[in-house]
Amino acid sequence: MIQAPYLLFLGDAPDMLAAKVAIGIRDWRPDAALGQLRLEGCGADLGLPDMSLTEAREAGARTLVIGVANRGGVISQAWKKVLVQAMEEGFDLASGLHNLLRDEEDLAAVARATGRRLHDVRVPSVRYPIANGLPRRGRRMLAVGTDCSVGKMYTAMAMEREMHDRGMKATFRATGQTGILITGGGVPLDAVIADFMAGSIEWLTPDNDPDHWDLIEGQGSLIHVSFSGVTLALIHGGQPDALILCHEPTREHMRGLPHFGLPSLEELRDLSLSMARMANPRAQVVGISINTQHMSEARAEACLAEAEDRLGLPAVDPYRHGAGRLVEALTAL
Amino acid sequence: MIQAPYLLFLGDAPDMLAAKVAIGIRDWRPDAALGQLRLEGCGADLGLPDMSLTEAREAGARTLVIGVANRGGVISQAWKKVLVQAMEEGFDLASGLHNLLRDEEDLAAVARATGRRLHDVRVPSVRYPIANGLPRRGRRMLAVGTDCSVGKMYTAMAMEREMHDRGMKATFRATGQTGILITGGGVPLDAVIADFMAGSIEWLTPDNDPDHWDLIEGQGSLIHVSFSGVTLALIHGGQPDALILCHEPTREHMRGLPHFGLPSLEELRDLSLSMARMANPRAQVVGISINTQHMSEARAEACLAEAEDRLGLPAVDPYRHGAGRLVEALTAL
Repeated sequence: MIQAPYLLFLGDAPDMLAAKVAIGIRDWRPDAALGQLRLEGCGADLGLPDMSLTEAREAGARTLVIGVANRGGVISQAWKKVLVQAMEEGFDLASGLHNLLRDEEDLAAVARATGRRLHDVRVPSVRYPIANGLPRRGRRMLAVGTDCSVGKMYTAMAMEREMHDRGMKATFRATGQTGILITGGGVPLDAVIADFMAGSIEWLTPDNDPDHWDLIEGQGSLIHVSFSGVTLALIHGGQPDALILCHEPTREHMRGLPHFGLPSLEELRDLSLSMARMANPRAQVVGISINTQHMSEARAEACLAEAEDRLGLPAVDPYRHGAGRLVEALTAL
Repeated sequence: MIQAPYLLFLGDAPDMLAAKVAIGIRDWRPDAALGQLRLEGCGADLGLPDMSLTEAREAGARTLVIGVANRGGVISQAWKKVLVQAMEEGFDLASGLHNLLRDEEDLAAVARATGRRLHDVRVPSVRYPIANGLPRRGRRMLAVGTDCSVGKMYTAMAMEREMHDRGMKATFRATGQTGILITGGGVPLDAVIADFMAGSIEWLTPDNDPDHWDLIEGQGSLIHVSFSGVTLALIHGGQPDALILCHEPTREHMRGLPHFGLPSLEELRDLSLSMARMANPRAQVVGISINTQHMSEARAEACLAEAEDRLGLPAVDPYRHGAGRLVEALTAL
């Protein structure tokens, strides 16, 4: 686990787009986002207090989280200076960068000397088991998508927030780098060795209270030929009781695959359900989450009403309307 | 690629069971199996000429292949002596052991000094691409199973041999450690990083002559919850034109999952076909391969006839009857 609270390092991010990870942490883990640290020329601003390393330590920060992509995959000397100083001041470091902190000899040496931890969340740090398929106590929801990047993480995060607001027991279970940096833990599923994928998800969603919900972040899509195997491992390892279908209706082809059209919600429903029932015969599809960000309000409402009518399931855009109706669909199970 | 021909190292294998990999190479790649090297106390005998390292080099051997499991996961000093000497005599080394040759400091040092290669086929040596899903020239067959270890590799190997005997263009494509050591190349799919699984299979089965068949070794099963994601990546990366259903009818539960019963051949057919057609709309199920090793001749014949009648597809046990009818089913496509 990555120790919270965090000081969010924005480096020399040219704009807000480059600070996507930091924005995710600020929006979804505000209690952990103590402040921001910006270098000269930084064009991003999270609206959080600007803090020096010393100020942040005094305010209780435990980990310096790199909340920004590095240019050209190189950790620059300007960054290194801050990262080294942070460890000397007592911070652990956390990063979702493609190039790993641990592979930088100087950072690794300082970490050893200071006893600080380097969290490279892009690679697994755990030896996961082979999945055993045994039923587990507690309940599980998995967001599945017609495609990659249609709002599966957002849906599960919004549901967790709504459930906590209602006093329900729920835990968002991160399966990607951004989700891990937001929550402080999880499984970087796309980097797990093939044989251990399903086992890593069993490990992530262990026995729990009977009224506790794991809200599992989806990855890829059963219908996306590049990543479908990852998605199936998530379905079989997660043993979800409830599936939520996620969709982005304006997309013209599968992400990265211009020659593949998108499946219908019905196709996603039938396929996901037949796969999920192999591992958990009680699995149900309970709702639809539609990402309407590229639609006018009127068009979004019409699209949601049409999907709801066609599939006979609550259909919402959690960004526009909150996740309340999806949570109610879970509790009705 | 691992350079053939091989000298097969049996070490101090207590019995034939321990020499399973070497037996596979002898049976399926006899041209590459020049001889065997046995240490004192070895209880296995492949019926190949016993050769010293020097004799084998003079006969043209290029690689010393460890064809036996090591006891307790330790490469003993007795083995090391032979492995070091082999490199000094000019052999590359190849191994499917869990503990890697490259992790043994002394072996790695001698390999560097002598310029010899250490092939640890249990881990990938290639940086595979993300799958792009583009159609490729040439044709592809994939063996899919109701369970793990039901005869998928054997079926594809028997078909390759039969197709070569008939003068057809065909290549067995290994996706597991034993298959890789038998053929000298392939993808150790169970050890590939999740995001690159489907891409590794695209890489393994590239564009080819229109009348060439890739015979892809299956792994796991879509219905086996521990490994289903690996199988789906194989289906979507392989884009098979033809599927052959593999089954072992005496098994009482899924391998390693005592609480999961086996699916029917019909369930395997429907599920595999719907998945395969996402990547290749022309995919067909063309035949059934049943492993009848635990049945009497009469019971085996009855079982095959019943399956053939029920599914309307040729059903054979390639071990008992050869793979001729499965090959004819491919050519009829």
